[in-house]
This record gives sequence, structure tokens and C-alpha cells, in this order.
Amino acid sequence: METRELWKKYEAEMFKISAYKLALSTVEFDAETIAPVKGDAYRNPRVSYLYGEMFSLQTAPEFIELLEELSTREDLSFEQARTIKWQLKDLEAIRYVPKNLYVEYSQLALESSQAWEKAKNNDDYKMFEPYLLRIIEMSKKLLEYRHSDAEGYNVYLGDYEPGMTIEKYDEFFDLIKKELVPLIKEISSKEKIRNDFVYRNYPAEIQRKMMNKILEYMNFDLEAGLISETEHPFTNSISKGDNRITTHYYENNLLSSIFSVVHEAGHATYNYQVSDELAETYLFDNMSSGMHESQSRLMENYLARRSSFWDNLFPYMKELFPEQLNDVSQSDFIKAANATECSLIRTEADELTYPLHILIRYEIEKGIFDGTVDVNDLENIWNDKYEEYLGVRPQKASEGILQDVHWSGGSFGYFPTYALGSGYAAQFVRAMSRDINIDECMRNNEFIKIKEWLKEHIHKYGGLNTPLEQIKIATGEDFNPRYYIGYLKNKYSRLYGIKK
Amino acid sequence: METRELWKKYEAEMFKISAYKLALSTVEFDAETIAPVKGDAYRNPRVSYLYGEMFSLQTAPEFIELLEELSTREDLSFEQARTIKWQLKDLEAIRYVPKNLYVEYSQLALESSQAWEKAKNNDDYKMFEPYLLRIIEMSKKLLEYRHSDAEGYNVYLGDYEPGMTIEKYDEFFDLIKKELVPLIKEISSKEKIRNDFVYRNYPAEIQRKMMNKILEYMNFDLEAGLISETEHPFTNSISKGDNRITTHYYENNLLSSIFSVVHEAGHATYNYQVSDELAETYLFDNMSSGMHESQSRLMENYLARRSSFWDNLFPYMKELFPEQLNDVSQSDFIKAANATECSLIRTEADELTYPLHILIRYEIEKGIFDGTVDVNDLENIWNDKYEEYLGVRPQKASEGILQDVHWSGGSFGYFPTYALGSGYAAQFVRAMSRDINIDECMRNNEFIKIKEWLKEHIHKYGGLNTPLEQIKIATGEDFNPRYYIGYLKNKYSRLYGIKK
Repeated sequence: METRELWKKYEAEMFKISAYKLALSTVEFDAETIAPVKGDAYRNPRVSYLYGEMFSLQTAPEFIELLEELSTREDLSFEQARTIKWQLKDLEAIRYVPKNLYVEYSQLALESSQAWEKAKNNDDYKMFEPYLLRIIEMSKKLLEYRHSDAEGYNVYLGDYEPGMTIEKYDEFFDLIKKELVPLIKEISSKEKIRNDFVYRNYPAEIQRKMMNKILEYMNFDLEAGLISETEHPFTNSISKGDNRITTHYYENNLLSSIFSVVHEAGHATYNYQVSDELAETYLFDNMSSGMHESQSRLMENYLARRSSFWDNLFPYMKELFPEQLNDVSQSDFIKAANATECSLIRTEADELTYPLHILIRYEIEKGIFDGTVDVNDLENIWNDKYEEYLGVRPQKASEGILQDVHWSGGSFGYFPTYALGSGYAAQFVRAMSRDINIDECMRNNEFIKIKEWLKEHIHKYGGLNTPLEQIKIATGEDFNPRYYIGYLKNKYSRLYGIKK
Repeated sequence: METRELWKKYEAEMFKISAYKLALSTVEFDAETIAPVKGDAYRNPRVSYLYGEMFSLQTAPEFIELLEELSTREDLSFEQARTIKWQLKDLEAIRYVPKNLYVEYSQLALESSQAWEKAKNNDDYKMFEPYLLRIIEMSKKLLEYRHSDAEGYNVYLGDYEPGMTIEKYDEFFDLIKKELVPLIKEISSKEKIRNDFVYRNYPAEIQRKMMNKILEYMNFDLEAGLISETEHPFTNSISKGDNRITTHYYENNLLSSIFSVVHEAGHATYNYQVSDELAETYLFDNMSSGMHESQSRLMENYLARRSSFWDNLFPYMKELFPEQLNDVSQSDFIKAANATECSLIRTEADELTYPLHILIRYEIEKGIFDGTVDVNDLENIWNDKYEEYLGVRPQKASEGILQDVHWSGGSFGYFPTYALGSGYAAQFVRAMSRDINIDECMRNNEFIKIKEWLKEHIHKYGGLNTPLEQIKIATGEDFNPRYYIGYLKNKYSRLYGIKK
């Protein structure tokens, strides 16, 4: 058969798969945002059944043969060849798994996430533990059905970030520990930055208005996206025209929702700006997690924590919260938004201590898979590690092991990509600064120029390139974590008046 | 094969169908409430594809054979036999339709509803007309694939309300015209009831609080349901544990959202109170439209327009709107909520003129199918009929032919069930009054007792019985529209001081 005809057959199958994906994404978004709890029991097995139907399409022998045949064709375009290559790579994760096991796992993941949410609201790890233990067991069992070159935890690390391994992450985190821990220690003896006002009362109703203003400032297209609310914020890009973010409002914290909204908007912008040519293909959302996190953390940390980002926003925020911010200047606010402090919650951690939160999770995950961590003692292990690395010990499960949703869905291997993504982001920002004046763009209310740079150098490619290729394309250099380390040391030394 | 085994096979197939139904209901709810418009073009064909997959399951020859085989078994329980009977009856509507036509129609209906919403917001019928004409054409074409005993418009009338025909509806509406039009005319010469305050400014934000209070008063279980917002309010019962209602806030109208919320809550309560045994069966939501409308209109008109309903709510509403309701007593409010006036919008019409709004739609639909109405002149025909029956002429399409969503989705034959449902409701309320003191229940904040009566006499049965059987079960009598006519004449004569 001619390649063109084969490709048409491929597209027809992909259309079917995309229909299930759209429905399942939408149902899950609905379930995590608004669906009433009493509907869970009816919904879960039906959603799992549909996952099974999608699985059948994705792993049908004829479909895989079609992909394999296409992968041998030399008259494919570069984009087509890459599409098939990445899809076959990703399919390795499921193609040898028995369907019933896959469906069982899907249902467990749904139930487990619901159990996690209840447990977190009740501050009771024991309510969630049996689910987590089953998820761990299943995640180990699924490894038996992999035909990957890697083994154990390395399999999952490579799923989320192609090319990454324990060895490479160890090296990355060793560098972080070596370079950053002494600085964190030194800062702990310095005078604290004032942040009392962060914890005043900020009604959710008014915070919502602030979020809309921030999204407007970021040119977030509300005809192609929306903002909703969940226990744990996330982004769901259903299509190029439908990018959804969520947040969680804490009325006693001014910063939490702001930076989480900017973070998620960073994710959403990545998909929103994929080129039209790739928007309905596999490359629309197969970017690596590290690449995706680089875009969310770039906006959250490298843009939204700068004063220039706030020149057009801070006056409005003062209008919204006249009493709460009565004694607070923009400079006070920016300082508080950048202050570093060893704390308990990853999503609210400052940039400097953030990678240590990740390191803790990474070490636990590694230990779960190599057997050096006792899975029946995870809460203690979590707390001990917080004490060891950050000098703080969670007193409540919701501020400890229950704070993150990831494990409830079986996402082992995801966390380290947050730190890696921050590393990528530092390098991207450096390259961007060579082309445009970031502060000027933000001050002049031209956030769009920053988005255009990101589109041109990163976003439009979707998942066409490997992370390392994409970094080379955008920056002209290979990935170098020294930019990240340098940025953090420089920024925090200056902020706390430490001589280098 | 033994009946028990056959039944298991049947349930397994029904589970699959229910999975698609859940996903499609959820995606549609999402699309009508929050989904960003730029996602429509990607979503529509995929949703239609999934409708096609569900269609394939529902109309698979083996599945229909299974149903037909089951329908011959004498060892089925009454519930089982009825389930199969009604399902086969409903399947007649699609089983002879070619799949590609069905998918095409599904996609057209989606696009048409989206076009309707845009046209309504732009007040421009011409934007919607081409879609409506295609929907009409398709609805006629689909009749060719019916093996029903009925013909033309009668087919659709019977789909929504088993047993109903043009002949019977003509008789019903003739009675209404004969009995009510003279009364309406007589009232028009009477002094108007004061309602100026209805059109003051009521911010949506505060109206939302009022709706929550009303739902609380009605014991609406928010762990098994939710309230959201749409252009045209509707109810979507995804499962017994997930009953969703929507409303639309008009800031210059106090009554609109209140009565629409109570109406939709009436629908939702019907499904919420189906017995557990029937909740996961076909009988969960195959009630006739007339029966369903009887439950929504019972709550909207026969309960929420009584003063006793407001004894526990009016003081709170005055707190929410202290300025707007400064000069308004509960009695003023109740009078305004019951005042009759010939107006343009069906959903906001009073009980007395309401059936004339339905009559207009019924006559147009009848004419569309028998060819006596020129489909290229529908807007004028609509306006002329409003002038003829109600003495008012729409000046804007959004207050005329574009006001209702129904035709955009091809729901011809649905409208008359609203009037019929009001008729059923009158008879149900009369029967209920024999068992409990409705006013006392409402005054004592015991709305639950009313719901229990409805559950026991109507709701728990789901769609087990025909409408006429269900009326007999609940009231001990055959359906008699005289109760409805009598109720309206009595109520409005008294309200306007007319001697009978």
C-alpha cells in the first residue's frame, strides 16, 4: 500500500482514539472539579470500561502493525516519522499489558484519587494507605509487562522524561545538594523577610477576581480555555481550543493561588501555542513532563516573581484588598513572594528550597522500587526526610504525605521532572533575554511578546523534539544545569545580602 | 439458554451502553455549561463518533435478538418484562436508521445548538435559520426509517408521550382554548397586579445565594447533584447519585431564575427518588416527557407559587435584597409571582397563559410536518401567532423564535408535553392533598414530606409504568384534564376578583 494511503488509515484510527481521549479527559475534569461524590460509584467502572475500549484501539495488533509499517517508510515527512516514532515508544508502556489488568488499574487509580481526596480532607493517612499500597503493588506488577531496555524505577523515569535515569538524576540532585544546601543554611541565620501580610484573610470570592485579572494580563484566551477549582491544581488541555486550568483557594494565604494559577497557565499556554499543523496530531501533547514543567515553572518563577510582572497588577490587587494590603508596598510583596524558608508544602515552596522537596519524593520513590523503603512506614519516612533535609516535621498528614495527588494516580517518576523543568527553564530564560527585554515587555503590558518568543522557540513544536533537542533549538546550547544553580545562588545571595 | 443467563448477557451489554451514555451526557453537560467555544470544532465530530459507537451497541442485531428473545420469556419479573418492552419500543426510533445518517444527525444537532446560542446572543434568526431548516429536513427524513404504527408528527408525539396523537392533543388544546381564553380576556380588563419590583436590579452573585437557599429548603442533596449555569436551563440526571440542574441569571428579573431552579429541581428529584432497585436499569430515566414535566411543573407552580413555600424563604430573600425589596411584603411577592399577563417568553409565563405559549409551538410543529407551514417564513409565523393568541408581538428574535433551545436539537413533539404535564400535575396535587397538608408541610420546613409522598406514589417507579397507569396508581383515577382547567379557573378568578 502506498504511504499516503497507509497514513490515511493511521489518521482514521487516531481519530477514533482521540474521541475516547476527549471524552475521558472531559469526564475526569468534570469528576475532579464539580461532579457530586455520590456519583463516583456509578461512574468509576464505566470510565474504566471506556479506558479499556481506548486501550483496545491503541493496542490492536493491526494498528501496531500499521505503525510499525509506517516506521519503515522513507517517504514520510520529518514530522510524520517523528510522530510514529514517539507513539511507538509510548505504546511500549501498554502494548504488552493484558487488557483486564489495564482496566483494573484504571479503576484503582480513579478510586484511589477519590480516597486520597477524602483522606486529605480528613487529615488521615490511614484512610488512603491501603489504596497507595495497592497502587504501588500494581505499579511494580506492570513493570513485568514492559519490554523496555530499562529496569525498575528507571522505566518510569524514562516514561516521563526520555533519556533520564537514576544515575543522571542522582548526579543532578547531588549537584543541587552540594551547591544549594550550604546557601540555604547560611540564609537561615539571616534576618527573615517580612511576610506577615501573606497570611491575612483573603476571601476566595475576591481572589477569583484577582485570578481573572492575572489571566487577562497574561493574554490567556478565555475562548480557548477556562479556570476552575480543585483540591490539587492541574491543567488539562483537551484540544488546542480547550485548555483548562484549576486552582485551589486558601483564604489565609495570598500567594498560594496566584503562583499556582500562573504555573498552570504556563502549562496551558504550551499546548495553546502548538502550531496548527500539529494541533490534531499525536505531537499536540506528548511533550516530556520535564519540558512541560519547564514552561509552567518559567512563568511561575522566572516571570511572575519579578517586580515588572506586577507593575500592571499590584495596584489592582491593592484595590481588591485595601485593608489587607494597606501597609504593603509592591516591593514588600515581591520580597515576600521570593523569600526562602524551609517549609512543609511543595507547591508553596520558594524556588531555592523547592528542589529539596522534590529530592525527598525522588528518594522515597527510588526506595519503593529498589526495596530499601518500607512501604508500610511511608508516613514516618516522609516526615523523617522533611526533618533531615528541611528541618521541619509535618504535624498533619495533609501537610505531609497527603499533600500531593500524584501517587494516588500512580504517577511514580513524575516528581523529579519538576526540578529538571526548573533547570530547563533557567536556560530558556537566559536565551530569551538575549532576544527581548523581559522586564520591559512586562512593564509595558506586552506579555504577548514573551509568549511569542516561547511559541517561536519552543511551543509551536509540540512534542516533535526530544527535550535535549528542544533545548538546543531554543538556546543553541546543550542542557546545562549550571545555569539553574547559578541563577538560584545569584538571586538568593543578593536577596539576603550574602557576599559570594 | 436459561432466562437468568440471558439476563446476565443483557445486563453486560447494558453496562457498555451505559458507559457511553455517561460519557456523552457528561461531555454535553460540560459543553453547555463551561467548555470554551474554540473547542467546539474539535469536539463535535468526536462526540458524534461516540454517539455512533453507542448506536452500534444499541442496534447490534445480536443485542436486538437478545431483547426479542427475552420479551418472549414468561419467567421474567414484572419489572424485567416491562424493561424489555419499553426498551424495544424506544429502539424502534433508531434501529432501522443507517449508522452514517445517525452520526450525521448527531453532529448536526450539536452544531445547530451551538449556532442557536450564538444567534440568540446576537439576536439574529438568520444566523440560525439554515441549521433549523436542515434539522427539520433531517427530522422528516428520519421518519422514513421508522416502522411505527403512527405517521408524520404523530410518530414524534408518541416518542415523547406514549399514546399521544394529534387528535388527542387537539382535543386537549381545544378544551384549553375554550375554557381559558375567555378568562384571560376578562382578566385583561381588570386592574393589573403590582410587579414593578420584579424588574429591579438583582445581581447574579446574590441571586446565586438565594438559589442555594431554595435548594436547601427543598432538601436538594448537593452530594448527589449540583447547580450550574447555561443559556437555557435544563436538567441532566447522569445517575441516581448525580443529578444536575442549570439556570440562567437575569439581573433585571427576580422571578426568572427562582422558578426555573424550582422547575429543574423538580425534574432532578424525580430521578433522585427512583428506587435503588431500578436506579441502574433502563427504567431509571425512560419516563415520558409529560410525566417528567408534571414533576417539574408541580414543584414550580403548584408548590413554589404558594405563600406557604415562602414562609421560610422570604425573610432570607429580604435580607439578601434589602433595598430592592424594601417596599415589598411576602403577599406582594406572591401576588406578583402569580399575576397573569400576556407576554413573550414561555419560561417566564404565568400558569394561565402558559398553555397558549405551548399551543403556538404545537401548531407550528404540526404545520411543519403536514406541510401547511412555510418553513422559510417561520419567524413571521411565530410572531403572527403570538399576536393572534397573546396579543403581543416579539420585536427581537431572542424574545421570539430564538427563545427556546428545543428545535435546535431536533426535539419536535416535546413542547406539548409541558402543557400535558401541567395537567397531570394538577391531578397529582389533588391526590397528594388527600394524604398530607401541603401548606403545613411547607410552613413547617418539612418539604421532605412532600418529596416522600411523590417518591412513594410516583418517583420510585421510574419509567416502569405508562403515564396513564402511573396517574391511576398515584391518584386512583384516570387522567382528567378537568382538574387542571378547574384549578386554573378557580385560582385566577379568585386572584382577580372574578365571580364564577
